[in-house]
Amino acid sequence: MDAVNHQFRLAARPKGMVKREDFDYVEEALPELADGQVLVKILYVSLDPAMRGWMNDSRSYVPPVQIGEVMRAATAGEVVESKSDKLAVGDQVSAWLGVQEYAVCDADAVFKVDTSVAPLPTYIGALGMPGVTAYFGLLEVGAAKEGETVVVSGAAGAVGSVVGQIAKLKGCRVVGIAGGPEKCKWIVEELGFDAAIDYKGEDVGEALRKHCPEGVDVYFDNVGGDILDAVLARLARGARVAICGAISQYNNDVFKGPSNYMSLLVNRARMQGFVVIDYLGRAGEAMSEMGAWIAEGKLIAREDVVEGFESFPDAMGKLFAGENIGKLVLKV
Amino acid sequence: MDAVNHQFRLAARPKGMVKREDFDYVEEALPELADGQVLVKILYVSLDPAMRGWMNDSRSYVPPVQIGEVMRAATAGEVVESKSDKLAVGDQVSAWLGVQEYAVCDADAVFKVDTSVAPLPTYIGALGMPGVTAYFGLLEVGAAKEGETVVVSGAAGAVGSVVGQIAKLKGCRVVGIAGGPEKCKWIVEELGFDAAIDYKGEDVGEALRKHCPEGVDVYFDNVGGDILDAVLARLARGARVAICGAISQYNNDVFKGPSNYMSLLVNRARMQGFVVIDYLGRAGEAMSEMGAWIAEGKLIAREDVVEGFESFPDAMGKLFAGENIGKLVLKV
Repeated sequence: MDAVNHQFRLAARPKGMVKREDFDYVEEALPELADGQVLVKILYVSLDPAMRGWMNDSRSYVPPVQIGEVMRAATAGEVVESKSDKLAVGDQVSAWLGVQEYAVCDADAVFKVDTSVAPLPTYIGALGMPGVTAYFGLLEVGAAKEGETVVVSGAAGAVGSVVGQIAKLKGCRVVGIAGGPEKCKWIVEELGFDAAIDYKGEDVGEALRKHCPEGVDVYFDNVGGDILDAVLARLARGARVAICGAISQYNNDVFKGPSNYMSLLVNRARMQGFVVIDYLGRAGEAMSEMGAWIAEGKLIAREDVVEGFESFPDAMGKLFAGENIGKLVLKV
Repeated sequence: MDAVNHQFRLAARPKGMVKREDFDYVEEALPELADGQVLVKILYVSLDPAMRGWMNDSRSYVPPVQIGEVMRAATAGEVVESKSDKLAVGDQVSAWLGVQEYAVCDADAVFKVDTSVAPLPTYIGALGMPGVTAYFGLLEVGAAKEGETVVVSGAAGAVGSVVGQIAKLKGCRVVGIAGGPEKCKWIVEELGFDAAIDYKGEDVGEALRKHCPEGVDVYFDNVGGDILDAVLARLARGARVAICGAISQYNNDVFKGPSNYMSLLVNRARMQGFVVIDYLGRAGEAMSEMGAWIAEGKLIAREDVVEGFESFPDAMGKLFAGENIGKLVLKV
């Protein structure tokens, strides 16, 4: 196959918000396939808040993307050439193939998906990393139990929207925090959250007092910053705070720490960080339960699709501006 | 008995550091004893960082001390009159009797101590609330295990000095953070810590890198602020941070939150607050193990004694200035 491949490679470590100039858009010939390899035509690129952290040159749970490297991303696509008996041309797959149009990789590095259960982009959303993150973050790290009050921030995002729905399916009372009336309406009316707090339009502390009169048992935090502080101030005795991310802080030079962390002492509460990588060995558990919910119409997986490979940097901007509802994906 | 009682009552909610004017020094006649009551002559008053928090009018794990109330404090003393068959005149006791010279209380509200195991003031120190705090905070909340690296701040204080010694007795490597060369020398040379970091004289982050090359498994935090941030930056995978206090912040209007809290995510670590009250039902476990260590000379309980009841406000100042080594007590 003689296809030409386009890629976004990291050109510079961003200062603050990600800009188009932080990437090089390059054209490259595709390598020949070796035995055991496949050529994947990437159809969807996942846009995740964590990508911002990978661009920084700092110690984290994965090595930073190096300058000149193809930007790391989860992807979903189709096998268009195969030198492996594990995968055939036409197979739909998900894999970590980066921000490019094609990728040659070992057949073992991709995961074959069943598009009769859910459409392809859902495999980088509710049935992909974000969904698995939501599942184990809520049920293992947050240890949410029936009858408890769960609060989730970034509630209309890829992870938060799934966290809230799982919590409802497990019998919790769920309050979502999101930005703007459209998102708030969606999570309550379509996803079945008990309440929504519009952090752009109301005082989060007051709204938490109103919607969580008995306090917050589990807080699933995607945003950090002032919202984390507001929820800390409302923790119930023995609460669990699962730290999944801090999108409000990723573009700042200095992180704002939670001033109200002593609420952990007053309420004998814990705050625990996690990384989905640690749960990959158990991803099947999450995917089979969530796949069944999706098939039964109990779990809504919504993707917010941006069209056109070249608009990748703009789509990153949309992510950090909080403009997406549901899982943001780039359609190549 | 016709004794006159002197008391320190809370006169005003302090702004910043505690001042003498925040208390009223009052003289009062003692009430008659009812059946089942005892009169205790208070010999030692405990000075604890937590007392600062109790002076604020804010929701916490215990109600605030009210204006006009006798300042809350742990005490140790002697029964001088008894209308209970549970306690005899001459019995040595510890109890929450407040900052006063005498107290009339129910016999059930005091705890008879054995001064053949340790001298009386130790029962408001290593064998009192601070010791029980150290024991359960380290072993239950911190879940310290043999071979792990434990860091403790406020390491020359009432709680910290016991935390480090228990950790050593349980087979951990122990690094203490304290202010000034005298304290650092004491915890290493007398208490057997593996290393000390003088936060007033060296860069804590660099020193942690040197003394904890494999990272910190358990951090027992008494101080908060910049030191908490420095330790967070050095956590090992799966670390536990036990939040016992934040003495560096108690006199500030606004708490400094830990900017490096995302290290909890990177390192899959947890930060958990606790209050010793929750462990009072199990205090016997801690006291019997620690009492044996003291008797065998394996655990050193040191008290820093300030003389004279009237110097109570100054002694509070000494506590927050970090001038005490070991448990600070006021000798009445």
